[in-house]
Amino acid sequence: MMYIGVDLGGTGIKAGVVTEKGEILSKGSTPTKNERPYAEIIADIAALCRRVVGEAGLTMDDVKAIGVGVPGICDPRTGVIPFCTNLGWHEVPFVDEMHKHIDLPVVVSNDATVAGYAESIAGVSAGTSSSVFVTLGTGVGGGVVIGGKPYSGAHGVGSEIGHMILQMDGEPCTCGNRGCFERYASATAIIREGRKAVEKHPESAIMARCGGKPERINAKTVIDCAKEGDETAKAVFDQYVKGLALGLVSIINILDPEVIVLGGGVSMAGAFLLDAVREAMKPYVFYKTMPYARVELAQLGADAGIIGAALLGRE
Amino acid sequence: MMYIGVDLGGTGIKAGVVTEKGEILSKGSTPTKNERPYAEIIADIAALCRRVVGEAGLTMDDVKAIGVGVPGICDPRTGVIPFCTNLGWHEVPFVDEMHKHIDLPVVVSNDATVAGYAESIAGVSAGTSSSVFVTLGTGVGGGVVIGGKPYSGAHGVGSEIGHMILQMDGEPCTCGNRGCFERYASATAIIREGRKAVEKHPESAIMARCGGKPERINAKTVIDCAKEGDETAKAVFDQYVKGLALGLVSIINILDPEVIVLGGGVSMAGAFLLDAVREAMKPYVFYKTMPYARVELAQLGADAGIIGAALLGRE
Repeated sequence: MMYIGVDLGGTGIKAGVVTEKGEILSKGSTPTKNERPYAEIIADIAALCRRVVGEAGLTMDDVKAIGVGVPGICDPRTGVIPFCTNLGWHEVPFVDEMHKHIDLPVVVSNDATVAGYAESIAGVSAGTSSSVFVTLGTGVGGGVVIGGKPYSGAHGVGSEIGHMILQMDGEPCTCGNRGCFERYASATAIIREGRKAVEKHPESAIMARCGGKPERINAKTVIDCAKEGDETAKAVFDQYVKGLALGLVSIINILDPEVIVLGGGVSMAGAFLLDAVREAMKPYVFYKTMPYARVELAQLGADAGIIGAALLGRE
Repeated sequence: MMYIGVDLGGTGIKAGVVTEKGEILSKGSTPTKNERPYAEIIADIAALCRRVVGEAGLTMDDVKAIGVGVPGICDPRTGVIPFCTNLGWHEVPFVDEMHKHIDLPVVVSNDATVAGYAESIAGVSAGTSSSVFVTLGTGVGGGVVIGGKPYSGAHGVGSEIGHMILQMDGEPCTCGNRGCFERYASATAIIREGRKAVEKHPESAIMARCGGKPERINAKTVIDCAKEGDETAKAVFDQYVKGLALGLVSIINILDPEVIVLGGGVSMAGAFLLDAVREAMKPYVFYKTMPYARVELAQLGADAGIIGAALLGRE
């Protein structure tokens, strides 16, 4: 049997037909146009599911279930999506709405949870039973896998790793708190600190690379300059790595997973980031002579959402 | 069948015979005398097990397994205790040593994990599938239960909730890091801040209650004065509650358990603490209109260690 995985984003919807082992047979996408009523968006999701099944040379009878990764929180028991900021959704009866179009089991979960699950089945953490996926993007998302299953907590509000507190009374966060992990470990943090740094150090290579316009600085600008040895960029990067390392150590001290997987835009910095984070964690780990979670880069890239959502349907 | 539960502490060893439901049939204790070689201490543990079985009117044939809660980390697969600071133990082959005396299955786990497990079976979190037990004592310990089972991570170094970071570059911790949760949420934190506060405010009721000797201030001194409305004590208590609340919100944002159970010395402050913490958490919770973990006080008190260790033997 096959599974359909849907990766629902604020700008685009991707879907694919996936085998039991996590291989994609066909995939497609359609714009979300998130200003529309949810019923229209969900009708488009259903149509996209039919299209990719057709393109795989299959019929809906070959499909066992549909899994959907959503950039918000989900109640897996009711199939309702209580909150999804990017889509402006509030209490959307997602599964019931899907059933108006397709008569197949539909399961929903958080997008980072789904991507982490994909990595744990078909990616860098394949074969492990516990892992934590950390997406380093505009914010910081989290996907926890425990006992080989995606873990989203008792009320569907877990895995919000970006909002564990790293600095009491620290940087104000979009969630209303201060000092959340994502204020220090997201691409947004690098941009914020990069812009601050060029104010003090206009001689930095960052300034040249952004054409003298600090508002053009992005995470890659800073990381590329750090790679090339620019002192100001290196200081910003080192501070970023410290915050990230401390957050990962907190995760280890609570969950002690086999693997921590880094994904999202900042993880594109590759070995430069990975080596720095691994090194920075060493002095912070509690039991210094005991083995602890290995830290790895995500492998599945943009397909993780489709694969993980599809595999969710296996459960 | 019955189970023996052993609560191994730095000063005393307690053991009891426990039913499948977590009822204690008999119990006893013996001093640890932790300066002795581990073989002697383990021989005493075995003797105590035999004694409590006899006192329950049973024989070892009625016992299915022995569970032991240890104030350190344990490798449940090998039965080795890699680290136990209070006992000065390092790489102690605990289960093998026990088997020199008693031919029954022996399982070991962290003491806070065991106490949290006991609460989840026979205490305040009975009937829940996920809970986090937080002991507010000299340090802060943690016991995580997921899917109804004690969770100690992939390498036995999880549940060290006291060492998640709450304040980057904050108060130095015994673990070598800075700003660990336990620096803000332990009895030690109340004592430290209470002593600082009376330096600035010698007119505080705290000073009278400690007989003018700040070195005599303990957590109860400060909390009792706060209860009676002393402003200085209230300020220390409020700051303590804030740190505790932020840490508990971090736990919710990562694990989203059904219940968080507060145990340990500081939890003796009862409703005064519980009401304050519940109130303090409200503005910090991420999804403010969603249900989240209820926070409760531990119920089993000093017996939690025996009960939880015994129930561990059921697994």
